[in-house]
Formats: sequence, C-alpha cells, structure tokens
Amino acid sequence: MTTVLFAAKPSTWEDYREALPAALDAAGISARIVQVADPHDPGAIDWIVYAPNSELQDFTPYTAVRGVLNLWAGVEQVEGNRTLTAPLCRMVDGGLTQGMVEWVTGHVLRHHLGMDAQIKGCPWSPDAPPLAAHRPIAMLGMGELGSACAAALVNLGFPVTGWSRSPKDQPGVRSVTGRDGLRQALEGADIVVLLTPHTRSTENLMNAQTLGWMRDDAVLLNPGRGALIDDDALLAALGRLGHATLDTFRVEPLPDDDPYWSHPKVTVTPHIASATRPATAAQVVAENIRRGEAGEPLLHLVDRDEALA
Amino acid sequence: MTTVLFAAKPSTWEDYREALPAALDAAGISARIVQVADPHDPGAIDWIVYAPNSELQDFTPYTAVRGVLNLWAGVEQVEGNRTLTAPLCRMVDGGLTQGMVEWVTGHVLRHHLGMDAQIKGCPWSPDAPPLAAHRPIAMLGMGELGSACAAALVNLGFPVTGWSRSPKDQPGVRSVTGRDGLRQALEGADIVVLLTPHTRSTENLMNAQTLGWMRDDAVLLNPGRGALIDDDALLAALGRLGHATLDTFRVEPLPDDDPYWSHPKVTVTPHIASATRPATAAQVVAENIRRGEAGEPLLHLVDRDEALA
Repeated sequence: MTTVLFAAKPSTWEDYREALPAALDAAGISARIVQVADPHDPGAIDWIVYAPNSELQDFTPYTAVRGVLNLWAGVEQVEGNRTLTAPLCRMVDGGLTQGMVEWVTGHVLRHHLGMDAQIKGCPWSPDAPPLAAHRPIAMLGMGELGSACAAALVNLGFPVTGWSRSPKDQPGVRSVTGRDGLRQALEGADIVVLLTPHTRSTENLMNAQTLGWMRDDAVLLNPGRGALIDDDALLAALGRLGHATLDTFRVEPLPDDDPYWSHPKVTVTPHIASATRPATAAQVVAENIRRGEAGEPLLHLVDRDEALA
Repeated sequence: MTTVLFAAKPSTWEDYREALPAALDAAGISARIVQVADPHDPGAIDWIVYAPNSELQDFTPYTAVRGVLNLWAGVEQVEGNRTLTAPLCRMVDGGLTQGMVEWVTGHVLRHHLGMDAQIKGCPWSPDAPPLAAHRPIAMLGMGELGSACAAALVNLGFPVTGWSRSPKDQPGVRSVTGRDGLRQALEGADIVVLLTPHTRSTENLMNAQTLGWMRDDAVLLNPGRGALIDDDALLAALGRLGHATLDTFRVEPLPDDDPYWSHPKVTVTPHIASATRPATAAQVVAENIRRGEAGEPLLHLVDRDEALA
C-alpha cells in the first residue's frame, strides 16, 4: 500500500476523482489517496501528485516523498522551489500533445482559409485562398509539442520553418537556430506559432524588434506561454500585423479589463490548447508510481540544475 | 501545330491566359489558342478546353475535335449533351484535391474546437474540447476527394466512417455501403461531410428522413454539390442540428434573398472548397493534349453511358 497526496485545487480533484483511482488500479497499484486539505502525516506520504497552483508550496515536511508528479506540462512555478528535494516529473500527456496539434492546426487553417469573413457572412466573392504550399509557417520551438504541430502542418502541405536552440532534423521542416535563424523564420512566415518553453532566454521573445521582423498582415498564434510576448509591444504592432490568437497569458484567467479582450485583431482562447486530459494524464501519473515502486527509472524527470542555479 | 479552342467565360480566360500557354509550352506542344468569341473555323479545331458555363453548347460544327477537356471537376452540365461526340475528360487537379482537403479539415476543426465562441469573445471558461478521437466523422462519398479528406482527418486522429457505393479499403476508415450503411454513418457522427458526386441516385441525398438520422447538434458540411441537399428539409432540421456550412448551392451565386444567408446556424462559403487552380489545372489540360497528340490514352475520361442513357 502506497500513500499518494493529491495536491491541487478542489476543482482539479473533481476532474481526477474517478480517473486517478482507475489508472492506479489498472497499473496494479494499491494506493490510498489523500487530499492536501485532509488531515495527514506528511512524513508518511510516498508520492505527491501536484499542480503548481496548489496551496502546498513548502515541501519540507514531506521527508519520505519519492517523487513529485506534476499534472501540468509547465514546471516554471515549481522547479525553482528550494524546499523540494525529491525528483520532479513533468506531465508529458499524449492527450495534451494531441490537443495542441488540433488547436494549432485548427487556428492555422482558420487564418489560412480566411474563415472569419465567411463566418461573419461576407458577400459572394469566389476567390479561393492560396493553397497551403504558398502559406509559410514559422514554428518557434521544436520540442515535443512544436515538432508534433510542425509534422501535422507539413502533412497538410504547409512549408514549415522550425526555430530551436539546436538544429532539428525533421522531415519537411527547415531547421534554423540562433538570432539570425529567428529573424529568417519571422521574415518568411505568414503565420507564426509560439511553442518554446518559457526560460530566462525566451522571456519576451516576441518584442518590438522581433514583432517588427514579422510580415505585414502576418498572424501570431500563442498556445505556448504568456511570458513569451511583450504585451505592450504586441498591442502596438497589431496595427500592422493581421491578427493574434492567444491561448496563454501572464495572468490567468485573463482579467476582465485586459485590452486583449476587446481588440478587434485579437482572439482569446481560455488556455485550452495545452489542457491536460485527466484520463490520459492519470495514466502517466500511475505509470510513474508503478515504475517508482518497482525500482525502475521515472519518466519525464525535470533537470532542475538551471532553475536552481 | 495544334489548334485549341478556349471555350469559357472571359473572366476564366483571365485566370488561364498565362498559365495555359506556359503549361503547353512546358509539355512541348506547339499550339495556337483561340477564344470562342474569336472568328474561327470550327472544323479546324483539334481540342476544346471547356467550362460548362461557356456560350458554346452546340458541339456539332466541331467535326474534327479530338477531345473536350473540362476545366471543372463536375461534368453534370455537359455529359448529357448529345451534340458532343468527342471524348470528354473531367478535371482531376491535384490543387483542387489539396484545396478540398484544406477546406474540409479547417471547417471540421472549426466546429470540433468550438472556435466560433472564442471568435465572438466568450468569457474565460477553460473547458478543453474533447480530443479528435472522440469526434466521429461521416464522409459521404469516398472518391478522389472524399478519400483524400478522410485520410487527412484520420491523420489528425478523427474516427472516420466512409460511405460509398462499393466498399473501400482505406487505412483508418470504417467503410459502409447501402441504405443501412448510410443510416449507420449518419447516426454515429458528430460531423457529416458531403462529397458524393451528383447523380440521379444522390439527388436530395440529405432529405427529411436522412437529416433525421443525424445526431442532435451534429454539423453538416457540404463542399460537394448543392443538389445533394433538400434545402427546405435542411432549413426545417436546423432547429435540432448544430450547424450547416455550405459551399455549393443549386443556384450560384447564392441569391441575395436566400434564407441560408441570414440563418444563424448556416455558414455560406462561396464555392471555394473545390476551386480549380489555374496553374495546376493548365498542366492537366496540357498533359492530356500531349497524350492525344502522341497517340496515348487520355486521362480522366468520362464514361458517358449513364448520362446519355
């Protein structure tokens, strides 16, 4: 019998209250699950299933914990926590990657096809849009999510340039790196997708200068991280740019008085592109607990050296 | 030197005036192109490049014509013409298929992702949509266009049921046939795509009965042919159905007073899904003329027996 602390908001527990026991059961693990608000002995907790917005921020009392299993793909809000000494695993959820591919492909096609005009009921003007082959895309970030989205777009015929820290060899994707590569990717694209992780070097990646490299009427999609964009610079650049569709923000939920809500060239989606799906995410958590209990290496371990440096 | 009659509206000639000579030249054909309105000797015409809305409807004087090369994928308006005795070839344009794949994928994802609510600026409600795996699609018609669209949707993770006259073996697509198969496909789908050809047996394929087989809130996409839908039955069914996105109509351009324009659950797109792209279509025409001149069999020949029966 292992003891699992579920440290997340009560609304998150609602999503997992069936999925997590079912996944643990399917993995052959006999576990007792306690909530962070339940009375419990911290020293008796074996595993912590964790969301960074949990009230649990001081890990010091949890002396016997063998691993913290993050429910979010993003670990920015926990990886620098110095009270955490146990291994930290990020969520790599097949459902999350798939959801991201669907969001990115859908929003690329919305702008590619000029769908808004028809949704608004424009008059009959039978000019077919150019084919995907003539609509170049820049994918900034070619990790798990970026490369999956790039592959889906290549499949549909889009020419994709992928910008990443080190060169990536992926069929149909032109790989560029460094500052020159970023400029090349942005200058050559009709649609730009932000999927880099948020690190010190990608904070405000899209700023007055880099937004200035984008083409007139180009479209920016941000399903990555809010902090990748200098918001004031984007609002200033939108006169010239075509549109921005934003799924992530520095403050979430996006405050009611945020200028993005009412800007005619901005679409807000409520952080749904990278939503973890409880059914698949619970399986990832259960598999890691099974591995830990069996003495096998954990999956998706975070290398915290940079964050703690 | 071969003589080609370009029989289409002057606006169509504008699209082809550069592409057609360039494609003929690239195919190594020395050709003189005349317009239908130019003075010309009908008996001296070797090939007719044809759009069914051309003023040329009586082919009798064109006694030496070796082939009529249709610029449209649809041949309904010409295949029954008894004055036409020369071989008739339909347009099978790679650009057309690609454009159809883009339109169908984009409009499926629009409804799948619930994009309209966000375009309209709905409040922050972070409920991620289900994954594509939980959004079954019915593809009615599994010819060149239907099977290409089905393949793209399968690639994105959608479960696709393909309805066709004879069973089709395509990876990831559940094949159904006949009246029972149609009912099964419609009852099981959240999104239905119409891509059957328009024949006597598919006229009003979607009528009060078959629309009644669709799920509550299901979405109908018609990039195929306007006559596949009984319009009155669709307007009556829309109270229960979720949406209809229509690209083809019995009368085009769709008249200003058509109820589809103002219906809140209808999106009209102006027959752009299946647009032939002049650059690629001209290559198809040139290749067929090259074949004909070289004594090779023509591509995409129409079997006119049914139409003339």
